[in-house]
Amino acid sequence: MLMKASSQSLTEQLAGRFSERIRNRLLAPGARLPSVRQCAEQHGVSPTTVVAAYDQLLAQGLVEARKNRGFFVREAGVARGEEPPQSEAPTGWSAGHWMVARRGPAPVNATSLIRGMFHKISNKPQPGMGVFPPDWLESTFMPAAVRKVTSTRALHDFSLQYGEPLGDSGLRRALSHKLAALDVQAAPDQIITSVGATHALDIVSRTLLRPGDPVMVEEPGWAVEFARLNALGMHLLPVPRRADGPDLEVMARYCAVHKPKLYVSVSVFHNPTSYCLSPGSAHRLLQLANQHDFHIVEDDTYSHIAPPHATRLTALDGLQRTIYVGGFAKILAPNWRIGFLAAPARLVEDLLDTKLLGTLTTPALLEKALAICIEQGQLRRHCERIRTRLDAARSRSVKLALNAGCRFAAEPAGLFGWVDTGVDTDALAQRMLDEGYLLAPGALFHAERTPSTLMRINFATTQDAAFWKKYAELVKKV
Amino acid sequence: MLMKASSQSLTEQLAGRFSERIRNRLLAPGARLPSVRQCAEQHGVSPTTVVAAYDQLLAQGLVEARKNRGFFVREAGVARGEEPPQSEAPTGWSAGHWMVARRGPAPVNATSLIRGMFHKISNKPQPGMGVFPPDWLESTFMPAAVRKVTSTRALHDFSLQYGEPLGDSGLRRALSHKLAALDVQAAPDQIITSVGATHALDIVSRTLLRPGDPVMVEEPGWAVEFARLNALGMHLLPVPRRADGPDLEVMARYCAVHKPKLYVSVSVFHNPTSYCLSPGSAHRLLQLANQHDFHIVEDDTYSHIAPPHATRLTALDGLQRTIYVGGFAKILAPNWRIGFLAAPARLVEDLLDTKLLGTLTTPALLEKALAICIEQGQLRRHCERIRTRLDAARSRSVKLALNAGCRFAAEPAGLFGWVDTGVDTDALAQRMLDEGYLLAPGALFHAERTPSTLMRINFATTQDAAFWKKYAELVKKV
Repeated sequence: MLMKASSQSLTEQLAGRFSERIRNRLLAPGARLPSVRQCAEQHGVSPTTVVAAYDQLLAQGLVEARKNRGFFVREAGVARGEEPPQSEAPTGWSAGHWMVARRGPAPVNATSLIRGMFHKISNKPQPGMGVFPPDWLESTFMPAAVRKVTSTRALHDFSLQYGEPLGDSGLRRALSHKLAALDVQAAPDQIITSVGATHALDIVSRTLLRPGDPVMVEEPGWAVEFARLNALGMHLLPVPRRADGPDLEVMARYCAVHKPKLYVSVSVFHNPTSYCLSPGSAHRLLQLANQHDFHIVEDDTYSHIAPPHATRLTALDGLQRTIYVGGFAKILAPNWRIGFLAAPARLVEDLLDTKLLGTLTTPALLEKALAICIEQGQLRRHCERIRTRLDAARSRSVKLALNAGCRFAAEPAGLFGWVDTGVDTDALAQRMLDEGYLLAPGALFHAERTPSTLMRINFATTQDAAFWKKYAELVKKV
Repeated sequence: MLMKASSQSLTEQLAGRFSERIRNRLLAPGARLPSVRQCAEQHGVSPTTVVAAYDQLLAQGLVEARKNRGFFVREAGVARGEEPPQSEAPTGWSAGHWMVARRGPAPVNATSLIRGMFHKISNKPQPGMGVFPPDWLESTFMPAAVRKVTSTRALHDFSLQYGEPLGDSGLRRALSHKLAALDVQAAPDQIITSVGATHALDIVSRTLLRPGDPVMVEEPGWAVEFARLNALGMHLLPVPRRADGPDLEVMARYCAVHKPKLYVSVSVFHNPTSYCLSPGSAHRLLQLANQHDFHIVEDDTYSHIAPPHATRLTALDGLQRTIYVGGFAKILAPNWRIGFLAAPARLVEDLLDTKLLGTLTTPALLEKALAICIEQGQLRRHCERIRTRLDAARSRSVKLALNAGCRFAAEPAGLFGWVDTGVDTDALAQRMLDEGYLLAPGALFHAERTPSTLMRINFATTQDAAFWKKYAELVKKV
């Protein structure tokens, strides 16, 4: 809130708030600032104050005026060829937050999307978060496992050499058993550990693709995956994701025209819709892959909260042309950064080369601790507890969302709800940010950032009546 | 040794030995097998046995015969379009080992070089190793630091969220102080942590270069760096490295013709020569960089054993167009995989994007433990102890090497000796491998793998008279 009694003028306070958001990329390059009238209304100041504040931002080179269209954040926030301002020290970091989406037609600086994940906006539960809140993840078994592997002798044994190229063999054995329970048959030497699932996806793309290669992605889909593939110079082909799987007609047309080499998919509890792939759709998709000779990488990040019967492409295919990617950021500890991939035997050597050239090995300490958590069944019981708690949270959140006038665009399931607000969620997100809530507007999940009335909510963080009250109030003003 | 009493025939034993080395990439694609006569002599078997063994390898598709030139390992070791054989489970892993270099004119499968680092050949001290032996690195302060950061509460605090994008702020502050002591002025928010120095170099190349871009590298130089840049599709321009620095005339010509965007350099205790950059050479090099507008990444991996007055480009330049890369695999714990880069403020955001898209954050546990080791001065004292021990080892190794008839191509210093054997070190390396010693032949350090009479030795692992006795015996037979 802007304060009249502050040592700073209202103009300075307003300009300061915008400049901070631009520097933290909560307002992305290309995003349009509110109109002078809207902004004056929102902040309870006079239009003159807003004009003066926008002029300050112009003078600082943070925004630019476009004739008859308003004020827009400059690309990369760089002021007229000068050095960009030093970023301020972060006051706090938190997981799973989102920047407010850009608006306007300028090309998307895709890599900037990810940065919003780490900015702590307020202490309120954040509806746009991509992970469980930290207090859901607390456990006693995790510190116990770490203590076990950090006795002096053990620590020296694995710290003083580079370690195993594929990753800790104990963890790979544990993962092999865990995958067998999902009907995915992968021997320990078909498994490569990585610095989180993101790194595993990066290893796969760097190994199988060359810049310019066409790659099929799901739309809506995971923004960081779009950004990563864009940064690698790939040609993204968005395939509409339906309730039972990808639109196979669109895929077939892409195959005929572009000959894509890879399809990247979240089969189970797809992000952001929580859709699960149907067995029939999986079968037809694999037939198409065989016919047109493309690989599939199946990102099974949400497997820990999935029902036991969920259909995986890698189970049907037997890891012939599919690669399985998993991780533990969503269920155990985001900062441990342990992910893995399981691949056809013929691809393992090339994938391992990519891992070694990029990071050499990965740290064994946390891999060994994770192996203990899996082997002793503690992770499995933890997942059961989280699932039960999530089911209760989802019931409450769904009720509150419906009462607030939302419509569910996909049947509520998993961690995320995909809801239709009826208004432009980019604009709504900017309003809610002023109240300390970070939303995940629908445009974030589109390869081209198409404006959208949809938004993704996290069921674990939207059980809060205060949020929905504020939502119901502001959604009318957009 | 081949054994007559074995259940396998001599032919099977001999074929088995070669096939294992080919599969482990200790014999690289394109490498030439010894002649039938040489091989028979070496193994004390009849030429008929050798011919039969080579025929088995041919039948398995592991080697190919070239008319009048002998037998060569097939590219990628893949048998006639069939699936490659499942790799066998490794029996043991060790750091810093090298594959025996390929021979012959076929194009190098560059990424395969790195794999030799992880194969344990025998329990003997390995002259080709790139790191200190594990027993040199043992300490009590390292496990104590880990225990301190893994109390239940502390572990939860940093594990259950993604953590700071740039890396642990405590570690970045400690690194900032440490760099200041080298006259490198980098604020904590100019520092980005990474999964080892390799990852930092990867982040820099992915951010500053696009596939096909020309990049200058030192020759001789670090093979893994060549392999990484090759895998990213870069155009390598090798610059001869002299005792006082790079050949600036060659660099100037490259600049005029190719307009390279980056120069990758190890200024202090260059690998493999242990040369140190002179202040004059550093100054002229930076002038050239300013004139032709290229960036320089200075890999200071060996800083921990360097004299305090050593010249760094990043110190002279004040991080204007230079990027500093450091790591702790060489001095503390190879498996902790902690490296970092310090960059000009204007590049930090783009470099951070590359880190986040590739791995999101990095694990904080070991970063926090390392910060403690640095802040409490324990790492500094550990470095002093290692330097003293290395000085003594170097004196002994140099004497033994000279007695064995080696000539030093560069004045002995640092961890590595660059010695001239007078014979083809690729051939010598194959002979020594039979005796359980892995060498680092000179061809490994050339971008084009030119055959060489030079080899790199590790002073910490060549104090062993038994090695030099075997060396003196076999060098005469090459």
